[in-house]
Formats: sequence, C-alpha cells, structure tokens
Amino acid sequence: MQKYAKILESVRTTSPLVHQITNYVTVNDCANITLCIGASPVMSHAPEDIIDMTWAASALVLNIGTLDPDQIAGMLAAGNIAAEKKIPIILDPAGAGATPYRTRTAKQLIEELPISVIKGNTGEIGTLAGTAATVRGVDSGGVFGNKKIIVRELASRLGCVVIMSGAEDLISNGSRVAAVANGAPIMGRLSGTGCMASAVVGTFAAVAPDLMDGCISAMASMGIAGEVAAKTAAGPGSFKPAFFDAVAVLTPEQVAASAKIIEY
Amino acid sequence: MQKYAKILESVRTTSPLVHQITNYVTVNDCANITLCIGASPVMSHAPEDIIDMTWAASALVLNIGTLDPDQIAGMLAAGNIAAEKKIPIILDPAGAGATPYRTRTAKQLIEELPISVIKGNTGEIGTLAGTAATVRGVDSGGVFGNKKIIVRELASRLGCVVIMSGAEDLISNGSRVAAVANGAPIMGRLSGTGCMASAVVGTFAAVAPDLMDGCISAMASMGIAGEVAAKTAAGPGSFKPAFFDAVAVLTPEQVAASAKIIEY
Amino acid sequence: MQKYAKILESVRTTSPLVHQITNYVTVNDCANITLCIGASPVMSHAPEDIIDMTWAASALVLNIGTLDPDQIAGMLAAGNIAAEKKIPIILDPAGAGATPYRTRTAKQLIEELPISVIKGNTGEIGTLAGTAATVRGVDSGGVFGNKKIIVRELASRLGCVVIMSGAEDLISNGSRVAAVANGAPIMGRLSGTGCMASAVVGTFAAVAPDLMDGCISAMASMGIAGEVAAKTAAGPGSFKPAFFDAVAVLTPEQVAASAKIIEY
Repeated sequence: MQKYAKILESVRTTSPLVHQITNYVTVNDCANITLCIGASPVMSHAPEDIIDMTWAASALVLNIGTLDPDQIAGMLAAGNIAAEKKIPIILDPAGAGATPYRTRTAKQLIEELPISVIKGNTGEIGTLAGTAATVRGVDSGGVFGNKKIIVRELASRLGCVVIMSGAEDLISNGSRVAAVANGAPIMGRLSGTGCMASAVVGTFAAVAPDLMDGCISAMASMGIAGEVAAKTAAGPGSFKPAFFDAVAVLTPEQVAASAKIIEY
Repeated sequence: MQKYAKILESVRTTSPLVHQITNYVTVNDCANITLCIGASPVMSHAPEDIIDMTWAASALVLNIGTLDPDQIAGMLAAGNIAAEKKIPIILDPAGAGATPYRTRTAKQLIEELPISVIKGNTGEIGTLAGTAATVRGVDSGGVFGNKKIIVRELASRLGCVVIMSGAEDLISNGSRVAAVANGAPIMGRLSGTGCMASAVVGTFAAVAPDLMDGCISAMASMGIAGEVAAKTAAGPGSFKPAFFDAVAVLTPEQVAASAKIIEY
Repeated sequence: MQKYAKILESVRTTSPLVHQITNYVTVNDCANITLCIGASPVMSHAPEDIIDMTWAASALVLNIGTLDPDQIAGMLAAGNIAAEKKIPIILDPAGAGATPYRTRTAKQLIEELPISVIKGNTGEIGTLAGTAATVRGVDSGGVFGNKKIIVRELASRLGCVVIMSGAEDLISNGSRVAAVANGAPIMGRLSGTGCMASAVVGTFAAVAPDLMDGCISAMASMGIAGEVAAKTAAGPGSFKPAFFDAVAVLTPEQVAASAKIIEY
C-alpha cells in the first residue's frame, strides 16, 4: 500500500494547480476538496482566459454536469492545450445516458481529446461502454453485464483509465483491474461527492508516476475520509464539513493502513 | 394531519426526479435539500439538453433569482414540455417587484406556461397580485392589504396554488386558504431558504394527490425541520448543516405531530 | 478603536443592499457572509436587470474570479450606474497576474470606472502596481519590494483605497497606511475567504463616513471572526459554519476590543 500512500504525500508537497471546467451546482465543493487534499483549484471558462490558465495547470478536469455549447467549446480549447502540454485530462461524464446531448458530448470529448481518465457512475460508464445501462438525471441506475469486464474493455478500447464509482469502485487501465472498497453509504446522500472525486482524481493524476495507481489512491483517499466523517455525522448536512475536515487531515499513513484495494 | 404526513411518505418511497432551472447563488442548496427530503435533483439549462431532461422529470421548478434572456428561453422550452407531459410547474418569482425585468419575466412565465404553483415572499406575491408591495433585492418588504385575500384572489385569478411565504406561510388554491405557522426566525438569516422551499414544493407537488395539500405539506415539512435545527444551531452557519440533517431524518410521524396548519 | 466599531454598528442598523457581480465558485458564500454581517446581498448580471438593481443598491462589488466578456460588459454597465449614483465600487481582481486576460480586465475596469476600493492578495496587487509579482490560479505568490510602499503608491496613483490581503492586511488611501493583523491561518485553506472579504468591504464601504476607516473595520471584523471560529474548528470544513456563526454574532464591542490595527 506504500505506493498509494506516497502519491498523497506528493500531492501535499507539490500542491499542483488543477484547472476545472465543471458544473455550477457543485463547483464550490470541488474547489474546497481540492484545497483540502492539499492542491490548488482554479476554475476558468472564457475562451480568452482558458488557454493561459490550462497552460499554468498540472491537470485538467472536465465535468459535463451542466453543459452547454459554449462550455463544450471551452473544454475542447482547454483540452487541446492540455494535450500539447501533456498534462492529464480527467472526464466526468455526468448524466451521460440520461439525455442524448450528454451522451453525445461525452463521446465527442473522448473522440477529440486524449482523455487520461474517465470517472463516472455505473450507468454513465455503462452508457459509454455501449452496454444496456440506465441513468436518471445524474444518478446511476443499473448496468447489464459483468462490471469488471465492462470497465476493462472500455479502458482497453479507449486507451485510458476508466473508473466506475459505486459502493465498490472499479478501476482499470485496460490490463490491470482493481477494486476500491472504501467509502460510506451517506456519501450518496450528499450532492457533489462524485464531482469531488473527479477533482481529487485530477489532483492525484497530476503527480502520480503511474496513472492507474494515482486513480486507485485518489478513490481510496476519498473513501477513507468518507468513512472517518461518517462516524461523527448525524446526517448529510453535518457529513459535509466533517468530510472536508477528514480530507484535510488525511495522512499517507492512514491511506497505507486503511485502503481496501483488491487487484484482480 | 395524516394526509399531509402521507405525502412525505410518498416522496420517500417514489423519489421523484425534480428538474430545476434556478439561480447560481443557491443551486447547491437546492440540490442538497432535494436529496435530503428523499428525491432526486437535476439541473440543466442548455436548449439541447433541457427537453429530454424535463421529459424524464416528475416536476419542474423555475426560479428567476439570477435570470437572463437565455435562461428565460430555457424556462419556456422546459415549461412547454412539462405542460405536454402534465407534470407540475413551480415558479419562484425571486426578486419580482425589485426590478421591472424580474416583474415582467415572472408575469411572462405565468402567461405563457400552465404554472401549477407560485411561491414567493410577501413583496413578490404582492407585486404579482398588483397590490402596492415592496421588494429590495430579493428580500421582501411589506404589502398593502389583507394577505389572505391577496393570496386567494391571485390563486383564483391565475387558476393555480399561490404560496406567500413568511413567518406564517399563506397558501391558497383560489377556494381554500390555509396558513402554516411552522418555521424559525433564523431561516431568514440563511441565503437560500426560500429557494430550497420552492425545490421542496416541487418535490411534493410531483407526488401529491392534491396540489394544495402537497404545498401545505411541503411548507410544514420545511418549517418543522427548521424548528428542529434551530434548537441546536449557534448561528446561521451551524444552522445550515443541522437543517439538512433535520430534513433528511424528518418522518411522516413528525409532520403529523408538529404541523401547525390552520384552514380558514 | 471606537470609530471602527461604530461602522459595524451602522451596518447592523442600516442593513445596506450590496449588489455583487461575482464568480460562480464562491457566490453562495458571498451571499451568506453579507447576510451574516447584517446587510442584504443581491446578485444580478443580465443587462436588462443590472441597471435597476444597481440603482437600488448602496454598494457594488465586482469580482473577476470567473470572468467572461458578457460579465465584463455587465460590470461596466453596473459600474456606470454606481458612478452616477455615487455609491462605492469595490474591485476584487481575482487572478490578475495569473493570465493576461485577467490582468487586462482588472486594468480596464480601473481605467473606465471610478473604483473606490481595490482588494486583492499580494500577487494581484503587486501585478496591478506593475511590480514583479506572481499569481498561480487565484492564489498569491510573492511580490518584489516593500509592500507598504507598493500599496500606498498604487492607492495614490489611482486615487482609491487599496487593500493587500495576507497574514497582515495592508491598507492605504494614498496618504494613510494601516496594517490589520487579525485573522487565522486556516482562512487560507477555505475557498472564498478572499471573495467574502470583498463582500464585507463593500458592505462597510456602503455606510462608512470615511472609506479608509470602513476598509480597516471590514478587514478587522473578518479577521476577528476568523480568530473566534478557528478556536473551535477541527479543519476547513467545520471552520466554515463556525466562521459564519462568528460573523453573525460579532459585536462592535468585540471589534473595539480585539482589532489589531497599526497605522504607520
């Protein structure tokens, strides 16, 4: 587990700048989780601003939770700079499968940009994999088929890391498949935990020697902090500040000791 | 009080998808309150996305707190789909009376869409009723005249339910008039309690057999949770997580026992 | 210290309406801090709405944290009304120095509008002063030269009050230079404390007999509340509600007793 712990340590010592083009519902939570984990968030969307800001960043997170044509244009412009600068691009296909526009946009971003990591819930990843899957709003329904195979094949086909989040997060780079079993059910009752996970994945991807390891460490870190916060929370309202606190004091030692990672 | 309690029970068992086109100031609070009460929020605004998303939803909430022409066009497009699908449309005319643009837009939405419920503060409802009323920013000033008559006549004239929120919420469908006296003064010191109430009204309207009953139950539920949270809160900051917690654990039994509803 | 305490008292008794055109990352925090300090926030951005709303307000806060051309046009329109109505305009040049677009926009707003107060971090103020300074994302890097001289000369050149926030806030109106040493390190780990400070500066500027005194009082008030909240907070997550609570109960007596103000 030491290699996963070390990635959190790197985040803390290098404090990467993570550029996030994301939705207006949970953007504040994404900024705060990035600060709490030890990095520096910045949000920018205007064509005039986006190129310079992406050039200064160490990772780019694209989240289509409240997408529109201007935002997609911005994502493509930022993505091209990220590609040129060779920094990781993380895609959160929020709501893919719920409407044709979201599904189409997620696929367009995957086609036009060298995406490094796709992180979605079961329904979203299932949709992108072309499996029968359901998404309602931005919430996951089920998926038909073996999840591990779906994740591995999608990762292999697209040449990136795929994360299917859930009670057990499944992560694959096309060859390796891992499961992270950290987390707490209450995380599903708070808006934005998925978006925050994508921000943290972007942060870890910015510093990790191996992308797959970075994704595993990010999801385990989120989950462990969630377990800590769930112990004291009386509900989703008090869980939120407790979660930010737990992320802020999370240590590499905690990750090494508490990560529940299975490699298949 | 049993019929009001049963509506909360329905929310919890059916978990309706509530599509919200709202302001960027309190949108995160609206998402979280919807999750806490037991439903599923989704926010979408692009013309390309809005029709499919509304089609999937069980209620549509329109809040003009930070309006602009593109958003109004989106509201009309979504509203037409909601009308076709016959799901309730809730209008929060935030700031109507404060500027001509807000007043005009609220009236336009009422004219062009089959609005099911209008929920505003005293000044906003007074403005729409054509009574002498004052609104400063998005905060209510006073209104001239008998509030119960204003609410009933506006509801009767527009053929919808009207909710005038305040220390005592007044609710009418044009024939019945009810008052809900739950709530706590500290709710006025937190940004977004009005917007959250509209989200909850939309959620209850999605499942209630009778729209007026749904509105009464929604306002009572918000108020009771506010009373619970106010007991432990040291100020508006700690009230907020406590309020989300109280909404999340609110039971139909609590609503039956604590609702302060007077029908006139 | 009595004169600084009295300005907070004025905020509480007059409850000014503060119009804020700001970023979508921390806008909810700006609304809540304005309510907690005792004033009334309103956010509006559409050309159709902005003029009437600014006309109703007692101060205008412009924050370029997530700027784009439409927003800049709105800021200029609102700023011209503020100038005509002679209400103070506060500029938070968030991210100036990080990208040419932000630097250019901050300078454009300063050139075209009668800005009353500029409040930025060390790197942002250094950038506007033409000193060698660094800004990464929206976070301050260092600045070359004597900070007190930089602040005073920029204030003198622009004919406004300049606030350079930091562990010690430096404030000058071109002749007087003051330092406010209140605050707590944890404030730097929460997204939006800088934006909230600008909202509070706008609120105090709306009522203060002297603009420089108003800025000093605002920064001291923020800092004292931060010190109070830091004592009970377990991390940035729990600091946030505690901070809002502390601002809401902050008394003029506390300001008089705890403000650490040095005039040079």
